[in-house]
Amino acid sequence: MALLIVSREHPSADVWAPELRRLAPGIDIRYWPDIGDPAAIAAVLMWQAPDGMFERLPQLRAIFATGAGVDAILRDPRVPARLPLARLIDPSMTAEMSEHVVLQVLRFHRQEPVYAAQQRARVWQVHAQPHPQSRRVGMMGLGELGQDALRKLAPFGFALRGWSRSPRQLPGVACFAGAAGLGPFVEGTDILVNLVPLTAETEGIIDAKLLARLPAGAFVVNCARGRHVVDADLLAALDSGHVAGAALDVFHQEPLPADHPYWSHPKVIMTPHSAALTNPLTAAPQIAENLRRLADGRPLLNLVDRARGY
Amino acid sequence: MALLIVSREHPSADVWAPELRRLAPGIDIRYWPDIGDPAAIAAVLMWQAPDGMFERLPQLRAIFATGAGVDAILRDPRVPARLPLARLIDPSMTAEMSEHVVLQVLRFHRQEPVYAAQQRARVWQVHAQPHPQSRRVGMMGLGELGQDALRKLAPFGFALRGWSRSPRQLPGVACFAGAAGLGPFVEGTDILVNLVPLTAETEGIIDAKLLARLPAGAFVVNCARGRHVVDADLLAALDSGHVAGAALDVFHQEPLPADHPYWSHPKVIMTPHSAALTNPLTAAPQIAENLRRLADGRPLLNLVDRARGY
Repeated sequence: MALLIVSREHPSADVWAPELRRLAPGIDIRYWPDIGDPAAIAAVLMWQAPDGMFERLPQLRAIFATGAGVDAILRDPRVPARLPLARLIDPSMTAEMSEHVVLQVLRFHRQEPVYAAQQRARVWQVHAQPHPQSRRVGMMGLGELGQDALRKLAPFGFALRGWSRSPRQLPGVACFAGAAGLGPFVEGTDILVNLVPLTAETEGIIDAKLLARLPAGAFVVNCARGRHVVDADLLAALDSGHVAGAALDVFHQEPLPADHPYWSHPKVIMTPHSAALTNPLTAAPQIAENLRRLADGRPLLNLVDRARGY
Repeated sequence: MALLIVSREHPSADVWAPELRRLAPGIDIRYWPDIGDPAAIAAVLMWQAPDGMFERLPQLRAIFATGAGVDAILRDPRVPARLPLARLIDPSMTAEMSEHVVLQVLRFHRQEPVYAAQQRARVWQVHAQPHPQSRRVGMMGLGELGQDALRKLAPFGFALRGWSRSPRQLPGVACFAGAAGLGPFVEGTDILVNLVPLTAETEGIIDAKLLARLPAGAFVVNCARGRHVVDADLLAALDSGHVAGAALDVFHQEPLPADHPYWSHPKVIMTPHSAALTNPLTAAPQIAENLRRLADGRPLLNLVDRARGY
């Protein structure tokens, strides 16, 4: 059984093969485009599919994504819908995402943009610091990533709340669910963090209507997908002052075009989709396990429900 | 028994009196300079002493500091050395300090200055993110503040180490102590956080010799006192590139003079001694308890050892 790896663009792509060979001895690993005998390839490890790849793999039985969000793969018409698709739950990626979320929440909570502007202007002025219990941090998306970020935020004493598609109960978190719960969730959120999967229902969820329901002076942290945000609406809310700041890691088009207003917006903190990177060393065990399951005909771990979209 | 409050300059100074009256009914509270009958004043709650105050308070029996670090009071020749001095351990201030420390550690760990510079230059480039287990965070000072900050850093998985004057044992922290332990501690520290008390032994502790022992590319977070740092040595280490960045909350002279190089140094993040502010609401219980102890002739909480300096 052979695995085809299509991720040469990733800086750590070369780490996959030795690690997978160590965990799954006997596995035949190939890197695109050197596919060898196509009939032997049972699975492909990929993020973006090269043109014409699937037509060349008649025996392909599964796709392993190298990321947690598989919206781009589901949206790609070249990817056969009949193939089981497993997304990646990489403990290291989860930890990185939580680092990013806590950093962005703390910088807004601690008024860091105000102090940074004061440093540039050589102004020495201390501002009263809101108590964390009065700072309501709202997590949109309560899967692996959202729950881990909430666990890392909890020790600081923030008033935590969460929203998810289907109802959840989390200790110490005021939980809201579904379309009916979104408004009440947003209305009581001072720092909104987005970690929902991108689906037909969540595309454009951060729009003028949602932003208007945030309390005045709220902050937005988006580290899920650019398409969750209606950029014109967020820019309008930032310019009106209703939203005080945004930390954006993801964008409709990546790399973000050089003339996009986010680059130089004084209230926008940008990172280049760097919040959470796949780490082959910590992700390889899941891939190895799914190779074994594929060989044995057992269900894959973290199998995507195509109807649900994640 | 009367308490004299000398902290009008503090934005929350007016909160002290109602809160202390609630916690210690019957207490006679006065604000400087309206001292009333000086003979009734048994204690003073203060940060900086007004000129001539102590000469006017013949019955004064204790000084309650409104902060955790009392170096400025101990250094002030106008403050009678015979008076017991209690420093303030305010749980809210401790929590704020930990927020500040975790924010500064995460921003260096997450390469935030690099990404901020890229945003200004409209550069989209992802950098490999070091694993937290390979990032050694060294806490200088293992009192209330240092220990709480270490507890808040622990969930992120950093390699934690600590240094203190006398030996300590903390779970999950590699501990070093005394003059002999300082070098080995510093040599293995990638992000150095300073929270030691300012004493004759620690003044200027962050000097060229200490900075040279840090690994190349280390970061310095100072949120204790400006006098812990030899500014010329830190600036030289930043300019040579040996130290990659510094987050400074405290300075030799505060407000920092407008012509000081820190304001515009590209590797310096400045805050105006805002890391941890006294919160009268959470600090009042300790003051009320010390008023009771003073009335009963019992030893004060958090009494300063003048010989030790904290």
